Amino acid sequence: MTRLVVIGGSDAGVEAALAARRVDAHLEIEILLEDRYLNYSICGLPYLVSGEVPGWQRLAHRSSDEIESLGIQVRREHRVTDVDLDSRALEVDSPDGRASIPFDRLVFATGAGPSLPAAIPKDDPATRPIHTIDDGIAMRRYVESRRPHDAAVIGSGYIGVEMADALVRQGVDVTMFGRAPTVLPTFSADSGALVEAELRENGVAVMTGEAVGAVRRNGTRLSITSSTVRNLDVDLAVIATGVRPTAELARQAGLEIGSTGAVVVDREMRTNVSGIFAAGDCVETYHAILERPAYLPLGTTAHKQGRIAGTNAAGGAARFAGSVGTQVVKVFDLAAGRTGLSEAEALAAGFPAATVRVVAPDHKPYYPGSRDLEIAIVGDIETGRFLGAEIVGDWRAGVAKRIDLFAVAAQHGWATRELLDADLSYTPPLGSPWDPVQVAADAWVRSTRPVTV
Amino acid sequence: MTRLVVIGGSDAGVEAALAARRVDAHLEIEILLEDRYLNYSICGLPYLVSGEVPGWQRLAHRSSDEIESLGIQVRREHRVTDVDLDSRALEVDSPDGRASIPFDRLVFATGAGPSLPAAIPKDDPATRPIHTIDDGIAMRRYVESRRPHDAAVIGSGYIGVEMADALVRQGVDVTMFGRAPTVLPTFSADSGALVEAELRENGVAVMTGEAVGAVRRNGTRLSITSSTVRNLDVDLAVIATGVRPTAELARQAGLEIGSTGAVVVDREMRTNVSGIFAAGDCVETYHAILERPAYLPLGTTAHKQGRIAGTNAAGGAARFAGSVGTQVVKVFDLAAGRTGLSEAEALAAGFPAATVRVVAPDHKPYYPGSRDLEIAIVGDIETGRFLGAEIVGDWRAGVAKRIDLFAVAAQHGWATRELLDADLSYTPPLGSPWDPVQVAADAWVRSTRPVTV
Repeated sequence: MTRLVVIGGSDAGVEAALAARRVDAHLEIEILLEDRYLNYSICGLPYLVSGEVPGWQRLAHRSSDEIESLGIQVRREHRVTDVDLDSRALEVDSPDGRASIPFDRLVFATGAGPSLPAAIPKDDPATRPIHTIDDGIAMRRYVESRRPHDAAVIGSGYIGVEMADALVRQGVDVTMFGRAPTVLPTFSADSGALVEAELRENGVAVMTGEAVGAVRRNGTRLSITSSTVRNLDVDLAVIATGVRPTAELARQAGLEIGSTGAVVVDREMRTNVSGIFAAGDCVETYHAILERPAYLPLGTTAHKQGRIAGTNAAGGAARFAGSVGTQVVKVFDLAAGRTGLSEAEALAAGFPAATVRVVAPDHKPYYPGSRDLEIAIVGDIETGRFLGAEIVGDWRAGVAKRIDLFAVAAQHGWATRELLDADLSYTPPLGSPWDPVQVAADAWVRSTRPVTV
Repeated sequence: MTRLVVIGGSDAGVEAALAARRVDAHLEIEILLEDRYLNYSICGLPYLVSGEVPGWQRLAHRSSDEIESLGIQVRREHRVTDVDLDSRALEVDSPDGRASIPFDRLVFATGAGPSLPAAIPKDDPATRPIHTIDDGIAMRRYVESRRPHDAAVIGSGYIGVEMADALVRQGVDVTMFGRAPTVLPTFSADSGALVEAELRENGVAVMTGEAVGAVRRNGTRLSITSSTVRNLDVDLAVIATGVRPTAELARQAGLEIGSTGAVVVDREMRTNVSGIFAAGDCVETYHAILERPAYLPLGTTAHKQGRIAGTNAAGGAARFAGSVGTQVVKVFDLAAGRTGLSEAEALAAGFPAATVRVVAPDHKPYYPGSRDLEIAIVGDIETGRFLGAEIVGDWRAGVAKRIDLFAVAAQHGWATRELLDADLSYTPPLGSPWDPVQVAADAWVRSTRPVTV
């Protein structure tokens, strides 16, 4: 009997196992995971800390029973220490001791780990990243039991802004430190400034362009030192300085590692070694506009890639269409979404890019509750090609599903003007005869080309 | 100087004039409209009656000044009685008397009129269609001044359900009569049943499969007779039995009229007569899946077609991409959206179609406020092609913008499985790693084909 082993029990790993089972009812499938949390949503951790999610158990995408009832064996607290390609076996450490686990096919779904700044106290309950379910549970307990008065959030990316929001909801005074000149560095500075204003309006002290040099224990407090700040004392420091691929095991096993530090795979999620696949936050992802690999660790992509890896590992046929880096984040009353290339990314990639920004109401202003969306479109001024977009607006105003329309345009290589042809829905409480995405596309087309429809 | 005359001052007409001005700054442009309401949103009339929109003046898409300041001449209360193609002149009746207006290019944007059941009292303030701004103003005044106790809404299409909602908000007891077996006959019966349940839950008495034979004046009341009901007495009867193209003038002028009764145009919105264009509710619309003309009177389509007609009439170049009949309607707390072909339409057009229905939460259920969406996908079981979809769910749960994603898939001839490749946005408060549209696509693919991604 053929035996598929999946290393990792988060999004990519579980999708791979489930997809493999659908392709082959008889395949022996085993998932090895380092911790005890099979198939939990780490994207939900900020809402656990904020109290919006009342218990970590709720964060399961599926129950273990649902997975195991499909004949998928799950081994918790199993850490793979070595991959022997010749004998096709894994060396594993577990509470039961060391063991060797044979495989015919292998899926690496080892994810990513926090990219920590240099000087952070080790094993200090008041300072940790927010990456694993254990991190989330510990931080929730710390906030509930210690009731911290103030906190530093180190990092201004999407986890950073979500954590700032979460801690404010728990009554904590938050100072955010970000190295980039504006928050949400995957967004343009203009969009970042809108999110920064929302953070400030909700009481977050935002320090941009501030690299944190050290977090030190100072009695009952932590002391933060950054580019311009000396010894800001806080009760809690959340580390949200991004992630890097967990690819050391893959490297040791002889898998090819790319310049980003992530595992190199083709669009079928095959590594350079026959029968070995990889998916999710540990791999380089094919970017559909750049037409080359990029490091884009996102849950949506991990799910897609895991499914493709599992399908192919079980003898099916599937191919990754490519990512365009679509993301959305909720921060207090705002949502900010982006897809495709920012103007800076587009220029760096050699596209003659220009941005047009518009403000348009989410639905007909005569119907109550209309809210303005700020939309930026990046396009190629020579070819007219759509390259990317950002939307910032009220989180109840359709930001996420509107960015999705732009995502499809980016992924399929549309001209910006093709957005005007889309036969979109309309009713005054929910839209306009020309949806805001089309108002923005129209503005881009008109400002870059004089006469067109 | 070349002279473009546009007949009609609603969506298609005004878009045509504006687009023509963008192409040619020197063109002489004139809009003739029968009433006094230039560029008003007739889609907003139910919200005027409901009181959600406090005054009809708010329903203007744009001010007249904004249009006239572009050198577009607007003539109100001008009714065209004849089109003389030989002398290229229009005969016009207006408060100033009869006149002849010359043209070089002409755009018919004469819209549609209510399709009235046979026996309705004429000029009775208690019974009228809801189609023009005058209809809306009169009905709002009637409801405000007479405070009707009960009403019949005749017609169960989207205007009918919106009017039932509007009248309930004004404290009116509503009975709805629909000829079709379920409400919203452009939707499947299953989706219609969900909307019907919402209407009933909000106190509307819904009579389906009921053709209204007559509305008669009966003292201070109106008396309704339908297939099974004799003499239901109400204070008010709203006629919402659909529309038919206003194409008599075009027919007299010698323009080709299709089997639907609407003006025949090509995808550049040209009629069979050189220099004469038509757009909006008076024309047959190219259906992108059926690849033939259909009658699809929708505001979104009217805007697109008007812009194309105006662009081409002024010497520019634009082409209509085709409609897939995308619609959304809000009814009390529900929104119902549809795009593409229903299963019945698909089978009638010769597609070997099958429907799969799923229920999926609009966002991760662990985050508060998650609401179920009921999604139906229709696809071609031989080719795997996506043909259409419907979504019914809470109106705050992203129904409209999710139907838009399906609309793009329908318009671009995607396979249903291509929806799974879409790089959509995700954050727990606003979605899932596989968006509900993808969950539905996955269910369709799995139930029609055993092994795929």
